[in-house]
Order: sequence, then structure tokens, then C-alpha cells
Amino acid sequence: MKLDVRDIYKNLDQYMNQEVVVSGWIRNHRKQKEFGFIDFSDGTYFKNIQVVYDNKLEDFDEIQKLRVGCAIEVRAEVISSPAKGQEFELSLKKLTLIGDCPEDYPIQPKRHTREFLREQAYLRPRTNLFGAIFRVRSITAMAIHEYFQKNNYVYVHTPLITTADCEGSDQMFKITTLDFNNLPKKDGKTDMSKDLFGKTAYITGTGQLHGESFAMAYKKIYTFGPTFRTEKSNTKTHANEFWMIEPEIAFCNLEQLMDIEEDMLKFIVSYVLEKCPLEIDFFDQFVEKGLKEKLVKLVNSHFTRITHHDVIDILKKANMKWEFEPNYDSDIAKEHEKYITEYFNGPVFITNWPKDIKAWYMKLNEDNETVAAVDLEVPGAGELMGGSQREEDYDKLMNRIETMHIDKSTVDWFCNLRKFGSCYHSGFGMGFERLLIYLTGVDNIRDVIPFPRTPGNCDY
Amino acid sequence: MKLDVRDIYKNLDQYMNQEVVVSGWIRNHRKQKEFGFIDFSDGTYFKNIQVVYDNKLEDFDEIQKLRVGCAIEVRAEVISSPAKGQEFELSLKKLTLIGDCPEDYPIQPKRHTREFLREQAYLRPRTNLFGAIFRVRSITAMAIHEYFQKNNYVYVHTPLITTADCEGSDQMFKITTLDFNNLPKKDGKTDMSKDLFGKTAYITGTGQLHGESFAMAYKKIYTFGPTFRTEKSNTKTHANEFWMIEPEIAFCNLEQLMDIEEDMLKFIVSYVLEKCPLEIDFFDQFVEKGLKEKLVKLVNSHFTRITHHDVIDILKKANMKWEFEPNYDSDIAKEHEKYITEYFNGPVFITNWPKDIKAWYMKLNEDNETVAAVDLEVPGAGELMGGSQREEDYDKLMNRIETMHIDKSTVDWFCNLRKFGSCYHSGFGMGFERLLIYLTGVDNIRDVIPFPRTPGNCDY
Repeated sequence: MKLDVRDIYKNLDQYMNQEVVVSGWIRNHRKQKEFGFIDFSDGTYFKNIQVVYDNKLEDFDEIQKLRVGCAIEVRAEVISSPAKGQEFELSLKKLTLIGDCPEDYPIQPKRHTREFLREQAYLRPRTNLFGAIFRVRSITAMAIHEYFQKNNYVYVHTPLITTADCEGSDQMFKITTLDFNNLPKKDGKTDMSKDLFGKTAYITGTGQLHGESFAMAYKKIYTFGPTFRTEKSNTKTHANEFWMIEPEIAFCNLEQLMDIEEDMLKFIVSYVLEKCPLEIDFFDQFVEKGLKEKLVKLVNSHFTRITHHDVIDILKKANMKWEFEPNYDSDIAKEHEKYITEYFNGPVFITNWPKDIKAWYMKLNEDNETVAAVDLEVPGAGELMGGSQREEDYDKLMNRIETMHIDKSTVDWFCNLRKFGSCYHSGFGMGFERLLIYLTGVDNIRDVIPFPRTPGNCDY
Repeated sequence: MKLDVRDIYKNLDQYMNQEVVVSGWIRNHRKQKEFGFIDFSDGTYFKNIQVVYDNKLEDFDEIQKLRVGCAIEVRAEVISSPAKGQEFELSLKKLTLIGDCPEDYPIQPKRHTREFLREQAYLRPRTNLFGAIFRVRSITAMAIHEYFQKNNYVYVHTPLITTADCEGSDQMFKITTLDFNNLPKKDGKTDMSKDLFGKTAYITGTGQLHGESFAMAYKKIYTFGPTFRTEKSNTKTHANEFWMIEPEIAFCNLEQLMDIEEDMLKFIVSYVLEKCPLEIDFFDQFVEKGLKEKLVKLVNSHFTRITHHDVIDILKKANMKWEFEPNYDSDIAKEHEKYITEYFNGPVFITNWPKDIKAWYMKLNEDNETVAAVDLEVPGAGELMGGSQREEDYDKLMNRIETMHIDKSTVDWFCNLRKFGSCYHSGFGMGFERLLIYLTGVDNIRDVIPFPRTPGNCDY
């Protein structure tokens, strides 16, 4: 019976002492004179299976020659194992070589640096670490879908190609079908009217604007898709392509938005703890000591809610030498984020930020100085989500658009939403990779994206 | 108690004769001298709720002035309804106007053409038709995730930005951060080494190549994300941005691939029939007569499996005047697809296609003339999925790459997968919008994409 390794682990009682057939790859191969031990993986489960064979097999000598990385089919009996910490093993009946692997195969059963494995992006999911990371990535994505679908949100595929000036067009990639070596000209400039869409188009940095229009129809929507930024930053937290989740909820104020953010995050963390216990244990042991405790604690914690003003008060009173002096008019620095989550010993929602450091579409508070924005800071990862109540008043929005120099002609339709049955509404964005960094303890965004794109790096 | 309209419909027993609060929009408003009737929707359910009020209310006159499109909060009692075909209605206690709506609001309670509504893309989800379409889109997306996750596939976010020549770079959008009016030059040509990634980069038309590398680690993976083509076609089935699902399975041959395709499609259709009964009934009544019967039939049908050669035999023997003569060396035309699904009275897998009309990575059959490709044709929608066993032999793949003039340097790593534990493996692609056209009966791709992008059209 052809099985996945996962099937055997999950239904061991059923398969014990049965003959099974599995196909996969050799992760390690230890040879003795009369015996051999193959660490076998088909990638469906975090754990390998040990395949044991002895020299009673006709092709014992050929089997002993098999190298790490070979693809094989194994017919074997599931038997209880004498080895420590291992419930069962496979006693080999017949091995078929499906695909050979040369000696210079880069993924050997030894410790490789993450930097080396980044250069082998197409092979690295075959390692324990990256195998675990990208399985958690998949399960976490499903947790997000399950959360929103069970709460009857509509999943909206907002467009990636856009002509709207959402967050400043200088931060967006332009796309074109024109020939860079033969651009059409008009009045000495490149004639973009000759391009496929008849004008300059971009790939977007947010689905929020489009998401809002759907929230005005469905009340509760979310997006989950790739997003692009042209930033030339080479840091651990920046990539030019990443995935974002952007829920948007009509008839929802800032307090209710925080309720949703907290509920969602606890759901996701619980889901991953339940579905990926082996992976989380592995990260806890080899990547971030205390990871599991951190995650369990989050699920059971109370999320503090405090204004930006009061956070600055606390920071100013703190007996600390700050690199960046806390300021009522400014953003807070990483050192402040760290202090404040430690101060409250848990996640902190910081609300009501100075309007000048936040986006043009956020709702102006009655003080005319702050906007109804909220950032969620979590211990050990800093800002995990950023959201706000949106400016639902047409005239106030127009004022902000002028002050912030947004190209109104490209967001006309978005502003019109404020004319046709406008309502108080709120939404937030969560960077998927930032969430994964928090969940796995892996600290570099390049290691939680299958094929990361950063300045100068677009291989594979 | 603040509720969604959906909550009341789903738990009517619980809320009957209770006071509830709902927020949403006026879809229609009929006024009589002493009474008024508001068709109220909050978008969480296909059906509206009727809100009735009479002149005993203090603000009766103001309420009567409320126009279609207004956002309102309604406090009311759930009561059984005397009206036909309606289980309950809301007896108004208090109405609060949240957002007004002018007389010239484009979405009025009358029949609008789909062409008109396409020009109101940001408002059209507020109509019955598009409200239903995009809810089905959301539920169908979830069906796909549930199918693959319950079968332990790993969801892989393959990169959109790529430098690999997957399907011919002339079909891909180039992306750039360079200034079109001030391009850096070197030897008379545009110097792409000055761009963000140091070379020409594209947004991709497929995740398959990257997906394969993950299938060689996890055995079973799927992708589900946006995809781009530069085609200048203005047809009902072409868009420049659309979503694709691309599963890839190691140790899987063409027969097993067809098993998976059939199982997946039946799961999705059953799921949508179960979760969206009202929407499907609506499409059945107003969009495609017989839609529901078609879908139920598919779930219970046997999918025929037949070679391309035998299909051509049948077409040649048919007593038909073809516009395009069937040919053993060629693709089949739409008229042939239609004939063959009617001939077999159900979905048909067509296998073993002439190698010259299929992609370079497909497995060459032993006849050296055909490849192990399979297209699934479904009644009424034509080709729904296209897949193949992949060429797993390094030398044969190299031959194909040369013959088909693929830029080898960009897919080196992909070819290397054939060196390091290669195995027979297969995968397919399904255009998400094509599936939605099949599920809803809506025949234009522009009407199943929230904000469609087609040549010359990139508004919103």
C-alpha cells in the first residue's frame, strides 16, 4: 500500500507489522558490515523514518552504495524499533532506486549555515530547518483563511496591477511591455500611452483602497496576497516582495478593530501550536529558546491598550539612556517598542498617533492633532500589525489629500466611497513574514520566504 | 445586540421576537402614506431583510426621505412576516442615519447592464449579481485551500518577481524602478544592471518551476496566487492579471494526476453547492439556466480518459462541418472541445499531445512524438485544467530546451532538480477565473475579477 510517511506516523496502530510502500529521499545513510540504516523522508512529516536492512537482501551491496539525496521507493514492514526515542522503523523488503544523486550534492547531513542555504534556495526546503519553516508558513496561511472564513469575511483578490497612488508611487515598481531599448517618444518624453494599459502602471504596495470598496458592500472582507516595495534596504526585515493580510470592516471603530486583531492573533497562534507541535519544539530547541512559552503566553495574555501620548510619558519617565529621545510628535524607535512590551509584560496596542507621521486616509481625531491609528507591538518582534479607523468624511479626506500631496485623480473613486453611504470603518495590515518571524523565531525575512527578493538579489 | 444579517437568517429561532441591532445599507425603499418598507442589506448574506416602519415613529417623515444607498443603523424587533416567501421581517424601533447618499447614486434598484457596472467596479459588489459572484469567489478560494490542506499539501508562495524564462519572456511584464525619461545607458543600450535587482526582472506567468523545487522536498505542494500575461487579447476569457492554482506532486504519474484533478474538482463543486445554495440558485435562474443541474451532474459523473490521437479519430469520423479541420499534429479548437464533451456527455481528460504544441518541460513519451500532457475539458466551459508529467531526465530536458530555444542560463537550477534525486512527478494548472466562469455561468472574465485588467483598461 502506497503511503505518505505522515500516514504511518498518524495511524501507527493500523500499519504496525504491515507491509507498506513509501517513496522519498535518503537524508542520511549509515553503513555497517552486515546492516544499513537509511534516514528516509518524503517531506510529508517533520520526522524521518529509519529504514533498516541487512545483508540477507540480494542487492545488499548496491543498496550500500546509495548516496544522500537519492530518490527511492521502499517496500518494507513496519516494526517496533529497539532504538531509543523511536516508536517504529521500517524493515526493508525491496528498494528501488528512482533517481540517483551525485557525491557533490550540496545538502549533506551536517550543519549548513543559513547564508549558504540561501544560495541554494531551490534545495533548502529539503533541510530540517527550512522544511519546518515552510510547512509552518503553509499552516499559518491556512489559519488566517480559517479565521476569516469562519467569521464570514469575504476574501477579496484586490488587483496587483494598479494606477492608483496608494502609498506614494515612488515606492512602487513600474511595469511595462515596452522595449527598454526602443521606447516610443512624444514631446521628448517616453510616451506611456503606447504601453499595454495606455498609461504608467505599477504593481501595488497595498490592497487597502480596493479592499475598502468591498467592505462597503460586504461589511467584512480580507485580502491575502503578495505586495511589493522598491525600498533599497538590506536589513533583516525588508524584502521587495512579501505577503500581506489586510482586513477591512465596515461599522467598526478603533476599539472593535483591536478586539478583532487580538482575537485573530490568538487564533492563529493556537492553530499553529496545535498543528505544528514538532516544528515549534524544533524551533524552540534550535532557533529561539523559550519560543513555545512565548507563544503559549501570548494566547493567554491580556493585550494592553494605551495611547501614543501615554507611551511617550512612560518612556520619558523611564530610567533609561535612549539612543533616540522619545517625543510626543514622533514615531517610536525599536528600543522603545522593546521597553514598552517589557513594561507591560505582553502585547501592547498603541493608539492615537500624531497625524503627521501616519497615512493620509486615517481618521482625524477630534483633537485635530492625532489620528485614530493603532499599532500592535508584541514582545520580541516589535510592530506586528498596523491599522486605523479610516477617514469617512469626504471633506476632511480631501483636506488630508491636499496636505499630503496625494494625486487625487488616481484615487477619486476611493474618495467617492465617502459620498455613497459612507460609514465609520476600520482595517489593519499584517505583514505575513513578520508574523512568521514571530512564530518561528527565525530572525531574517530571507529565511521565511521561499525565494526572497532583495536589492540585487533575484536569482531563481 | 449588534448582529450580522447572516446571523439572524442562520439562527432565526433564537432571535425571533427579540430586539436586534444591525448596520448596513438601504437597497430599496418603498413608501406608503402610513408605512414604509426598507430592503436592508449589510452584505453578509445573499438575502436582504425587510425593515417595516409606520407613522407612529416620531421621525417617520425623516425616515421616509432616506434614499437608496444610505448607511443606517437599525434597532428593531424580529417578527414573523405576513409577506409571501419571507420568513421574518424587522419591525423598526429606532433608525440612525450613518452616511447619506445622493440622488445620483449610480446603483439604483433596477436592472443595470453588466457593461455599465464594469465601469462602476468599485460599487458593483453592492448589486445582487456581483455580490453573489464575489462571495462565490471567496468561498471557492477556501474550497481549494481546504482540499489541499486536508490532503496535506504544502501551500507554497512562489515568487511573482522572477528572472527565469518560464514561458517565454515576451509574454511577461518587465518591472523596473528606473525612470523611463532618464534611463541609464551603456554601449548605446539601456543598462539594466542599474535596476534594483541588477538585471531585467519580470512578473511571472507561472509558479510551476519554483513549485517543482518544493515538490522535490514536500512531495505534495500547491500554489495559489496572481499571475500575469501581456497578451493584447480583448476576448471574454483573457485578462492580463488572473489567479492560478498550480499543484505539483512527486512520485506521481499522469494517471494518478488525473485522479487528483478529478477528486479536487468534485470536492470544490460540492463545497460551493453546499456553502452557496442561494447564490447558485440565483445564477441558475438569472444567468445560466440549468447551472445547478450541470454542477450536480459533474459531481456524480465519470470523467472519460482518452488520448489526443483517439479524439482526432472521433472528430474526423463525426458527421460535422468543422471550421477547423481536426489534425493529429495540432491543438483542438473550441468547436472540437464542445463536440467531444457532448460526445462523452461529461468531462473528458485528453492525454498524450503532440510534443510540438506543448511546453518544453513536459515528459516525452516513448513514441518520441507525444508528451505526457493532459487537458481537462468540461461541458460548457472547455479547457479547465492543463497538466503533465514532467520531464525528469536531465539529458532529455536539455534536448527540449535547445529545440524550444529556452534561455537555459535562467532555468539552470530547475534543470539541476533532475540531478539531485530526480523522480517521476506531475502537476497541473487551473485558472481560477475559468473555474469561476464554470461555477457561476457568468461568461466574461471581467465579471468574475474584482478589478479586471485588460489591454487599455487599468482604472481603479
